[in-house]
Amino acid sequence: MSTSSNWTIIDNQLPVSDNEALESIFTVGNGYLGVRGSYEDDEISNQATTHGVFINGFYETAPIMYGEQAYGYPYERQSMISLPDATHIELLLDGLRVDRNNGTVSQNVRTLSLKTGLMTHSFTWEENLSKDKIRVSYTRLVSHTRKHILAMQVTVKPLNFKRAILTIKSTLDTNSLTVHHSNDPRVSDINPAVMLNHTTTLESQNAQLMGMAFPTQGSKLTTLIGVLHNIDGVIDQSTCTWQKQLLIDEKPITFEKYACYFDTREPHKNTVLTAVETELTQCQSDGFDQLKTEQTNYLTQFWRTSNLHIANDYNSNLQLESRFDLFQLLQSVGKDGRRGISAKGLSSTGYDGHYFWDTEIYIMPFFTMTQPKIARALLINRYHQLSKSIQHAKHLGYAGALFPWRTINGQESSAYFPASTAAVHINADIMFAVQQYFYFTNDHQFMHQYGLKMLVETSRFYLSYGNWDPDKGFVLNTVTGPDEYTALVNNNAYTNLMVKNQLEFLTTSFTLEQVTSLGVTSDEWHQFKLAAADMFIDQTGDLIGQDDSFLNKPKIELTKLKKRQFPLLLHFHPLYLYQHQVLKQADLILAIALMPYRFSKKQQQTNYDYYEPLTTHDSSLSRCAYAIAGSKLTDQKQFSKMLQLSFETDIEDSQHNTADGLHTASMGGTWLAILLGLVHIRATETKLILEPILPPQWDAYVVPITYHGSQLKLSVSKRGAIVTLLSGDPVVVELNGKQVTF
Amino acid sequence: MSTSSNWTIIDNQLPVSDNEALESIFTVGNGYLGVRGSYEDDEISNQATTHGVFINGFYETAPIMYGEQAYGYPYERQSMISLPDATHIELLLDGLRVDRNNGTVSQNVRTLSLKTGLMTHSFTWEENLSKDKIRVSYTRLVSHTRKHILAMQVTVKPLNFKRAILTIKSTLDTNSLTVHHSNDPRVSDINPAVMLNHTTTLESQNAQLMGMAFPTQGSKLTTLIGVLHNIDGVIDQSTCTWQKQLLIDEKPITFEKYACYFDTREPHKNTVLTAVETELTQCQSDGFDQLKTEQTNYLTQFWRTSNLHIANDYNSNLQLESRFDLFQLLQSVGKDGRRGISAKGLSSTGYDGHYFWDTEIYIMPFFTMTQPKIARALLINRYHQLSKSIQHAKHLGYAGALFPWRTINGQESSAYFPASTAAVHINADIMFAVQQYFYFTNDHQFMHQYGLKMLVETSRFYLSYGNWDPDKGFVLNTVTGPDEYTALVNNNAYTNLMVKNQLEFLTTSFTLEQVTSLGVTSDEWHQFKLAAADMFIDQTGDLIGQDDSFLNKPKIELTKLKKRQFPLLLHFHPLYLYQHQVLKQADLILAIALMPYRFSKKQQQTNYDYYEPLTTHDSSLSRCAYAIAGSKLTDQKQFSKMLQLSFETDIEDSQHNTADGLHTASMGGTWLAILLGLVHIRATETKLILEPILPPQWDAYVVPITYHGSQLKLSVSKRGAIVTLLSGDPVVVELNGKQVTF
Repeated sequence: MSTSSNWTIIDNQLPVSDNEALESIFTVGNGYLGVRGSYEDDEISNQATTHGVFINGFYETAPIMYGEQAYGYPYERQSMISLPDATHIELLLDGLRVDRNNGTVSQNVRTLSLKTGLMTHSFTWEENLSKDKIRVSYTRLVSHTRKHILAMQVTVKPLNFKRAILTIKSTLDTNSLTVHHSNDPRVSDINPAVMLNHTTTLESQNAQLMGMAFPTQGSKLTTLIGVLHNIDGVIDQSTCTWQKQLLIDEKPITFEKYACYFDTREPHKNTVLTAVETELTQCQSDGFDQLKTEQTNYLTQFWRTSNLHIANDYNSNLQLESRFDLFQLLQSVGKDGRRGISAKGLSSTGYDGHYFWDTEIYIMPFFTMTQPKIARALLINRYHQLSKSIQHAKHLGYAGALFPWRTINGQESSAYFPASTAAVHINADIMFAVQQYFYFTNDHQFMHQYGLKMLVETSRFYLSYGNWDPDKGFVLNTVTGPDEYTALVNNNAYTNLMVKNQLEFLTTSFTLEQVTSLGVTSDEWHQFKLAAADMFIDQTGDLIGQDDSFLNKPKIELTKLKKRQFPLLLHFHPLYLYQHQVLKQADLILAIALMPYRFSKKQQQTNYDYYEPLTTHDSSLSRCAYAIAGSKLTDQKQFSKMLQLSFETDIEDSQHNTADGLHTASMGGTWLAILLGLVHIRATETKLILEPILPPQWDAYVVPITYHGSQLKLSVSKRGAIVTLLSGDPVVVELNGKQVTF
Repeated sequence: MSTSSNWTIIDNQLPVSDNEALESIFTVGNGYLGVRGSYEDDEISNQATTHGVFINGFYETAPIMYGEQAYGYPYERQSMISLPDATHIELLLDGLRVDRNNGTVSQNVRTLSLKTGLMTHSFTWEENLSKDKIRVSYTRLVSHTRKHILAMQVTVKPLNFKRAILTIKSTLDTNSLTVHHSNDPRVSDINPAVMLNHTTTLESQNAQLMGMAFPTQGSKLTTLIGVLHNIDGVIDQSTCTWQKQLLIDEKPITFEKYACYFDTREPHKNTVLTAVETELTQCQSDGFDQLKTEQTNYLTQFWRTSNLHIANDYNSNLQLESRFDLFQLLQSVGKDGRRGISAKGLSSTGYDGHYFWDTEIYIMPFFTMTQPKIARALLINRYHQLSKSIQHAKHLGYAGALFPWRTINGQESSAYFPASTAAVHINADIMFAVQQYFYFTNDHQFMHQYGLKMLVETSRFYLSYGNWDPDKGFVLNTVTGPDEYTALVNNNAYTNLMVKNQLEFLTTSFTLEQVTSLGVTSDEWHQFKLAAADMFIDQTGDLIGQDDSFLNKPKIELTKLKKRQFPLLLHFHPLYLYQHQVLKQADLILAIALMPYRFSKKQQQTNYDYYEPLTTHDSSLSRCAYAIAGSKLTDQKQFSKMLQLSFETDIEDSQHNTADGLHTASMGGTWLAILLGLVHIRATETKLILEPILPPQWDAYVVPITYHGSQLKLSVSKRGAIVTLLSGDPVVVELNGKQVTF
């Protein structure tokens, strides 16, 4: 079904011409460590570059400066920071640096294999005077099986000469630790370069091991970075440079470089330095090929339960793009219960490397339905934020817990509360993910140990935040919904629906007895039920207002705006946006996408038709929600178009900011679009519900699903839909209304 | 009617024990220049001190740092800054500094005369060893007739010795140019000390003249400060120190010091230095007594048309306090059409020395009704902000003009738009003042030259900001009213009422023909009328919601809070405040206070009773509005109590922040409370309407009023109310419903 090109991203075949966007796309990582796909030596081209090596959750803090301070504002910014870069390698041939000044570079190719997890970079270089020609090939991986390890293999192949001296300078580079300054609020501006003043040299017993300890000042974290090669060289510890001269004759020369990034919060038996030494020595003795094999095995296993097959799609890139998205999600996601998945994965410091609600709503479904262990780890990471979230709510004046809008360490780190802390739907979003996880996995142990406590505390928050309005019922005033072009409104429909859903989940899937140990009284339990039942949702007509006053605001004629005026947030004052019926992203439509069973078909259509023309999709999270909500409606072409646009976010750089990092939520959202928009998947505690459709332009598709621990495969073609049990116990599946036990 | 003590503020008789609060209270100024009432030599006491010399509108800029930046946010903070202090004088007796270390200070008294405008400071000092005793008296004034001049007279009187050497060190002091750092958003934090690196010495032909040019870096303004004494001394230009040794026998020694503060935007014929030289030489030759005489004459004239007499009031301080308020308003207000009146007058850099809406709503009525020339100058200062306000509106996406919420130079300088730019009532507030000014003065020339253009442009803004709601009429969504414990709400009642009033003023007091030259078409004119008529005011019951959703929010039990939890803004997150029915200050009640004729008696009572218990009065602007609105209602005691509390704001330091400067708006508001709450004054184009009442505890009061250029006096006693025409043409007065031409 797939061709080899559907498993490999190749530079130059991509329409993106911006090297910094390519560096994001060619990122390799393992959820703990990520390395941007920059060249090993920038001097082979004159393209703009932004190097970056990141540890998920390794951050620095800085005071938040407010134009106007107020009580309770977060005082500290957290920013994931760029670390010294071990990919840097310079080559010299007969003393001349292999760069664009001393020679001509040709056949310069970058590839990223989604099957092997390897990124390669190779080029041919012809020296200007002697015309000596070599082919240089770099291969790198960030190991999925050895989380701290970045490994590289370099081959230099002589093409037209008999004998020369090859000099290799390999460093742990710190020159790249500078930062772009930008007025774009989505771009980070903490400067890691200042931290270099505080680094210390590693003092290893192994004289060939070089490296440094890289400590942050505000957050008091340290990463040890060690580098070891598979051949001995001359080391300058002070500059972290390893150098080697070799005679190169007609045979290629190959060498390997291993770097270990180990932050001090990682568990270790002896000293951290010992841990680094041990891991590097093991790599050296196992060799690069062993690491390659491990990587391929890991990914084979991954694809077995996660691969999405699309046959004969209308867009030849769709198969590749969908795999790329899932591959990058795997590379970005923390798997140890102490890390989440940041808005830009491990490809950039954009959005400060923070974890948002995107995780639970857009990204987690993929893991919940195909890699439930990873989904569990993500929820446990949230659980570890719970005590800070309880403090946060208390500090704001409310009971229960309010999860942070954006964070790394669990502290709220937003500097503008109307578009962050006021977005109290974050709680219900996380609980929606808990509910999905529970229904798909039947993991009672998780609920007992982690889930119920989160569910009760976040429900308490809503009871305390909302109030009973004599005319409307239970209302949630002064909130901000997903659409950030509106803020501090009353009864955002998405929020109210999601909170209603959460309270119903709590009070119908569990009993009071199960939560009495969490301090829930029968009175409180009754309040939870009452709030769920009385939750205000304006359903006077089929058209549902995004909030109490949204529908009475004037509209902006979006079609009259110029292309350069988008995204609106960079060209219009928030006040103007707040005053108008204009959406940054799906809001009510997202509720329809997530919970279509709560809306009549007519409501779905009416609201889709109403909101779609008002939506700018200035957020990359928007299109997939429309794709899902629209999938069953009249306009099928719209779905295909949106799905395609959604898939292309990074590969086509459609938001013009892939240079600032990948859009992990959009990646998850695209997968979600297929599962919710085509498969119409839904789980309850007792069965898996599927109502798959096939877009007219597609021949077939195959989706893997994990339900209650069993591996299923759904194949949809023009002949119909078939579910196959691949492994595990039989489960109940309702396929197109027909209930079958597989 | 008055006793001498009713004209003089005396330190130690005041309950305030905080020296920094006293320094605010003892400020002397003339609307251009202001000097805090600090001691000439701090070493005579160990009290905390904050020196301050200010020029109204002399400011520095600094970039506004945002935690999260967005399009259209103001980029520059403006801050009125402290200037080098010419009041500093050190005395030495036989080489020993006259301070608390070398001797004992007793009978230390500060006075401020509201009749003469002089501040005095005198004390007795007995040297520890010799027991030599002197009485030192400083007198200072900031001239109302010579706007750049600060003058001082010093007398040293020997009390018990025959002969000693008196050394005088007189400086232009820069040591005091440091700044408090505070988390309180109301306190400024631009540091003028850094500007000292850029000062240059004045190079005068007059060797006895010392001083410096003090330039700002961001705003590119310069103030020249020159100092001249009436006797020659030894000058050190580099440190701006003048020194003199004198033999002191049994007779007192007196000397004078003159300082000229002249900023480069002031008009001048030759060079600024020449202007400074000329003014100082003139002072030197005229002498301090001449300046004193001028000052007394000026103030006599002021009190003639502005004095408020209160006879046998229930609070013996009321007469003095009311005079103090009016005196400080005169000292604070810009009179040249290029300066306004800042929130803290010229007593502090609090609120950055910015001009707010307080000017027009709280302060201007006093000037409009008693000193219309000053009122005119204040409105012309606003007119000079109009072109920037048009740009501001355009930048936000709206037509017409939006005046800045806080500013010195006309640029919006707020860093938190939900509580500033969104407070679009600022336009209507200014137009309310224009309307009042026009009705009280009949100044058609002003309207023609300035007023109408402001009126049209601000009305245009509202047409563009608001929209027609099919159910409600003309609505103004996403606004913030005066009460800042609520933000970004729909149809704030105060705002809508004030805008309605403005549009009615425009379309009923003027004709389309008068504004066609301003580009108003008959269609636009019609829209103005329509918007006024259709303006949404929820009057379904007598209780009017502060905004569309206010009444449905939960309440905070204010009585259960601890005293230290006020003001709430320093102890609660804005989100929590926004979510509740709690007021920082009068909002709808202010509308009732300003336009009682728009409400039935029942509405007034209902709303007063409803909102009063919800109001924290955390803003010093709050009480007077309640005092006014409550004055005709059942609870007369409440009025008296509020009036008293309002009067005591600074004298009793009831907000605990008089140290950070005087509350000019509260001062204006107290006067307003009497005029609107007792006199029930109102002007139309053709008559002055008075419905005075006498509080039961008062014997009588007399209020001066200027109407259409004529001086009137209203005397109210237990026998009734009498209006007397003091000067000018006869005018029509409707006194208690009876129309009389005086």
